[in-house]
Amino acid sequence: MKRTFLCMLAVGVLLQAAAQVRGKIDIPNLPGYVTLKCDFHIHTVFSDGNVWPAVRIAEAYREGLDAVSITDHIEYRPHAGDIKASHNRSFELAEPVAKAAGILLIKGSEITRAMPPGHHNALFLTDSDELDQPDYMDAFRAAQKQDAFIFWNHPGWDAQQPDTTLWFPEHTRLLEQGMMMGIEVVNGEEYFPEAHQWCLDKKLTMLGNSDVHDPIQAQYNFDKGAHRTMTLVFARDVSTQGVKEALRERRTAVYCGERLIGEERYLKALFEQALDIKIVKVNNASVRVTFTNNSDFVFHLKKTAHDTRLVYFREYTIQPKGEQTVTVRLQEGIQGGDMNFSIENLLVQPNRGMDYTIKI
Amino acid sequence: MKRTFLCMLAVGVLLQAAAQVRGKIDIPNLPGYVTLKCDFHIHTVFSDGNVWPAVRIAEAYREGLDAVSITDHIEYRPHAGDIKASHNRSFELAEPVAKAAGILLIKGSEITRAMPPGHHNALFLTDSDELDQPDYMDAFRAAQKQDAFIFWNHPGWDAQQPDTTLWFPEHTRLLEQGMMMGIEVVNGEEYFPEAHQWCLDKKLTMLGNSDVHDPIQAQYNFDKGAHRTMTLVFARDVSTQGVKEALRERRTAVYCGERLIGEERYLKALFEQALDIKIVKVNNASVRVTFTNNSDFVFHLKKTAHDTRLVYFREYTIQPKGEQTVTVRLQEGIQGGDMNFSIENLLVQPNRGMDYTIKI
Amino acid sequence: MKRTFLCMLAVGVLLQAAAQVRGKIDIPNLPGYVTLKCDFHIHTVFSDGNVWPAVRIAEAYREGLDAVSITDHIEYRPHAGDIKASHNRSFELAEPVAKAAGILLIKGSEITRAMPPGHHNALFLTDSDELDQPDYMDAFRAAQKQDAFIFWNHPGWDAQQPDTTLWFPEHTRLLEQGMMMGIEVVNGEEYFPEAHQWCLDKKLTMLGNSDVHDPIQAQYNFDKGAHRTMTLVFARDVSTQGVKEALRERRTAVYCGERLIGEERYLKALFEQALDIKIVKVNNASVRVTFTNNSDFVFHLKKTAHDTRLVYFREYTIQPKGEQTVTVRLQEGIQGGDMNFSIENLLVQPNRGMDYTIKI
Amino acid sequence: MKRTFLCMLAVGVLLQAAAQVRGKIDIPNLPGYVTLKCDFHIHTVFSDGNVWPAVRIAEAYREGLDAVSITDHIEYRPHAGDIKASHNRSFELAEPVAKAAGILLIKGSEITRAMPPGHHNALFLTDSDELDQPDYMDAFRAAQKQDAFIFWNHPGWDAQQPDTTLWFPEHTRLLEQGMMMGIEVVNGEEYFPEAHQWCLDKKLTMLGNSDVHDPIQAQYNFDKGAHRTMTLVFARDVSTQGVKEALRERRTAVYCGERLIGEERYLKALFEQALDIKIVKVNNASVRVTFTNNSDFVFHLKKTAHDTRLVYFREYTIQPKGEQTVTVRLQEGIQGGDMNFSIENLLVQPNRGMDYTIKI
Repeated sequence: MKRTFLCMLAVGVLLQAAAQVRGKIDIPNLPGYVTLKCDFHIHTVFSDGNVWPAVRIAEAYREGLDAVSITDHIEYRPHAGDIKASHNRSFELAEPVAKAAGILLIKGSEITRAMPPGHHNALFLTDSDELDQPDYMDAFRAAQKQDAFIFWNHPGWDAQQPDTTLWFPEHTRLLEQGMMMGIEVVNGEEYFPEAHQWCLDKKLTMLGNSDVHDPIQAQYNFDKGAHRTMTLVFARDVSTQGVKEALRERRTAVYCGERLIGEERYLKALFEQALDIKIVKVNNASVRVTFTNNSDFVFHLKKTAHDTRLVYFREYTIQPKGEQTVTVRLQEGIQGGDMNFSIENLLVQPNRGMDYTIKI
Repeated sequence: MKRTFLCMLAVGVLLQAAAQVRGKIDIPNLPGYVTLKCDFHIHTVFSDGNVWPAVRIAEAYREGLDAVSITDHIEYRPHAGDIKASHNRSFELAEPVAKAAGILLIKGSEITRAMPPGHHNALFLTDSDELDQPDYMDAFRAAQKQDAFIFWNHPGWDAQQPDTTLWFPEHTRLLEQGMMMGIEVVNGEEYFPEAHQWCLDKKLTMLGNSDVHDPIQAQYNFDKGAHRTMTLVFARDVSTQGVKEALRERRTAVYCGERLIGEERYLKALFEQALDIKIVKVNNASVRVTFTNNSDFVFHLKKTAHDTRLVYFREYTIQPKGEQTVTVRLQEGIQGGDMNFSIENLLVQPNRGMDYTIKI
Repeated sequence: MKRTFLCMLAVGVLLQAAAQVRGKIDIPNLPGYVTLKCDFHIHTVFSDGNVWPAVRIAEAYREGLDAVSITDHIEYRPHAGDIKASHNRSFELAEPVAKAAGILLIKGSEITRAMPPGHHNALFLTDSDELDQPDYMDAFRAAQKQDAFIFWNHPGWDAQQPDTTLWFPEHTRLLEQGMMMGIEVVNGEEYFPEAHQWCLDKKLTMLGNSDVHDPIQAQYNFDKGAHRTMTLVFARDVSTQGVKEALRERRTAVYCGERLIGEERYLKALFEQALDIKIVKVNNASVRVTFTNNSDFVFHLKKTAHDTRLVYFREYTIQPKGEQTVTVRLQEGIQGGDMNFSIENLLVQPNRGMDYTIKI
Repeated sequence: MKRTFLCMLAVGVLLQAAAQVRGKIDIPNLPGYVTLKCDFHIHTVFSDGNVWPAVRIAEAYREGLDAVSITDHIEYRPHAGDIKASHNRSFELAEPVAKAAGILLIKGSEITRAMPPGHHNALFLTDSDELDQPDYMDAFRAAQKQDAFIFWNHPGWDAQQPDTTLWFPEHTRLLEQGMMMGIEVVNGEEYFPEAHQWCLDKKLTMLGNSDVHDPIQAQYNFDKGAHRTMTLVFARDVSTQGVKEALRERRTAVYCGERLIGEERYLKALFEQALDIKIVKVNNASVRVTFTNNSDFVFHLKKTAHDTRLVYFREYTIQPKGEQTVTVRLQEGIQGGDMNFSIENLLVQPNRGMDYTIKI
């Protein structure tokens, strides 16, 4: 009885239910850029998902996302016996809801093929129906003609790559022809270290998306503080064009669980924008380092090689949204030194944390 | 990436996602009857709901329900531009999933009319399409011909009854012609005390249902211990026939938040089956009463008129699944007496708790 | 291993543990006043509580309280066999921790007597030891001499008032001699409607406190969104003097679960400061009323007598921290009218909600 | 107001508060042994903890532990200015509460020295005061004379071992003289892989304890499903003697977060007792493997070297308390084979998961 019989606006879904309050994830902007929280891989009943498109906007709103793309499969539509529709239809249905909710909705589709080349998402489309082609290269060319941003989804999905995550000649071809600009380094909860390396080596954009099919709550426990896997996009402004430009220029990072995955320049900037570090010399033998974390990120620090006369923690966790103080002891009369550590959950290389130094 | 591309069984939705563990709500059986947790008012994309039918079974499974009925509107189908289907279709799609999950799925539909007579659900249908009739009485007759159990939904819904909950002559007619056997005393979180009284006076079955349209988690916060509003059915066995017989014989109670609503004989039986009460005389001046609550129910007790030489709590809460002890003092040499209280959240009459006495 | 062996500062308890982030409860200030969240009834191991005083400050910090008073019993000290200390000791131990944490700590004690007069808290003491007197009137006089604010605790506690909440001649005497300025209208989760009425009639300050003995988490489930029962104090500034003046001038309200209890002028002001109400005429037949709730309060609205041509909800809940829109229909050509309702959980009289009107 | 003024039994703390329901952690017994959940490292106000001893029993009860030891520091008592007591006192105060709650309470103390030898716990003491000795070896000898079980606490605590976890000659001496029988492989959330290796090499008992000082909820978020770090003891019966014998015979495993740490024979037995594995051949090309997990453990599986014609997941998580099915494909006409994987969170060697094979 949450529906008014006669005058239901599509937009209503966001405003009527009690719990539909806009969420907020505190992630800092970077100098010159606004950080957008994005999910570019989402399904609805118009392919093999299980919810109506408006639900995807309500979810994004509740979770505090900035931009999403509904990327229903072109070639896999198990509900087609009941739902006959253009490949543009899920976008059309979600668009007014997204507008009302203040969510950027980017038109996309999933080109869904056996491996190689596997599944790829094409974003910023103008007509998804053009991608419905028998030959996969025709589908990619149709996307390219629409100036799409195309990326490889879940490159290590065990249903397609049962034992190893391989790069095929077909991927080289797509890359060379400008039809693969990025890869999902994380899909759902699964991280692909090989893809991480490929992105670094081949200068590809790193993405992380939910690939949600069911209601999002069946996949993430938000009450336990979880967030969906998302791509952080460092855009010049909050617009579709801003997202597109950022994706093409590889200004992204992936946020999955407690991990951030990306190029060092962005992870370092996120770390430094998230944290205020204040150093106070207590006396000749001790210094107090206060971390004020203004973000929802957690940071796991682990001491690395250093002057052992500078005595501090071996492992240390900086919690979200709080202030914590660490005491550093100066031994044998030293006046200061380098406090070296790795931030274990900021992956700047496959499964490798980011080194950082605080000058004491 | 939670889907296998080629071999997706409808049943898969229950088994693949990590969180899909069968839930459990501890509610006692009654002597001679098994207590079934049921929701007889549910929508999908086949009317104005926002999820695919299989999701409703996954939800019921996760929450530990025993039986559900998907009751899409006959007359209100806002997604009809995209989905062309028989009124039987949501049942057909959900049926194999329900079977695999061990959930009783009862075929139903919602006859959706202006007030009077408002909305009514018909359960145990054989062909929902027969209910698609211009005249509402023809729709009711078609349901009756299929030997349906028919009940009035949300009688006090403010969109149809803005100021008062009224019984119209049309309802008398339905009742007299055997086409209204029950009423939703609770719909979603809304309780209708007038309907509660009508059920008592006119010997109608009391029901409480979720009327869920969106993913159920948007309506209930299960992580905070919430459960959906449900009808408890005291059936001879776990079968569609068992449910039908129980509904016809008014063997139900409504479970909504912390409240139980129903006839005294059933609420009393639930209370007594849920609780072990042990009385131990400590000495001449005090007695210890230990409550062992084996159920998920909470009970809010409030002292009523009593011999004031028997001294005990004024208000007391028995928590779910635990053991709690109360000390009763005997003053002025009395040897015992009646410990009288009302169980405030067991409503045996509109907004009135159930009286109970423990002999000390 | 959360302790450094040699250099533990009392203050450390707040800074070292991971979860020790300052909480935040969003409650609006009132024009001319800052709203302070206070708990004036707290125990430690120095009477019959079970935690060290510093824990009480850490709890207050984590929960976002502004001011607390540790009010250990003068006459009841079950741990006295192990702990020998002045009645000032728990304050002394907590004071530096409170200072470091930015919590106002008000020195207090509980005068703990059989009924009448029962238990009373004295706040703003300078020397608690002076209250340790054989005759209760001497204890009250000692508090008065220190210019204390004295209030009656849990007037309807069933251990002292088993069946009814009575006002004794002793209370009249305390009141007349200026030794009772307020009453706990709520203690823990228990609300005393009789005390609510006495406060209104006798112009006494209304208080609500936790009376916590165990670790606070054993009493409140913060993860489910609970908050401890607290006194909201409308002070001119954030200072002990500001709290004292406000208490003496009855500028308080009680916040317990979802309920606010207090004088209408304060509850009305809280409601209006918490909420932005925007009215937009859609057309001749309907008006949209948008509530933006900037607070953590929930408001339960229930329609009261009104022009029935103005059609709106029967019951409606405004959730915390969000924006919700209600549609009001204008029938039979009316241009507007009074939207009347009671806010059921804002108690301006015993068990009675606050009436409110929005002009359409 | 949760206390009765006159008749407070120590035992009361467990029975009176609403939330004091005995918790339950589902961990299987092993053939011939009952699995006891134990925490052997706990502090109270009688050393540098912040709660009264009874609170520790209430916590253990609520969390479903079987046995605890309160191990207040002998040499570090920062509250000694207020609390003068024998080192036996916290045990004496907790003992009747433990008895009433059905928790095994083992008398213990922490010998608290600079490194080397660092901190050590002695369990099964008869008189803790005997351990109060100027020379640490005298303290160890006093414990040994009482037939204590002695183990090294947090060997890699950065306050004592700032950069590396070292084994000192003093430890060899303690070991050789039979005064070190075990080591904390985990203390709080911190895992010491070096200690893990020492236990394997030197045949020492592995322990994991909370070392809790504050109320336990400040350290663990139980509402998010956390459990305290604990030692699983495989005892012949539920008795102090049973625990002692098991500790001496190294029948333990450590349970910390999602990880189990221990000897392979015990982790393998836990895995096999926790899980029912059912293998059903669907047809010549596929086999269904159903895992029924009856425990609260989660298991993270990762494929290892195998015949690649047997196609299955790369990574897979078996959730607690549920049933999950995996499809294994048989390619190129094979009839079966070995499904090999490592259980990543079952550490049988430092930071190394346990290999396992299911025959298909």
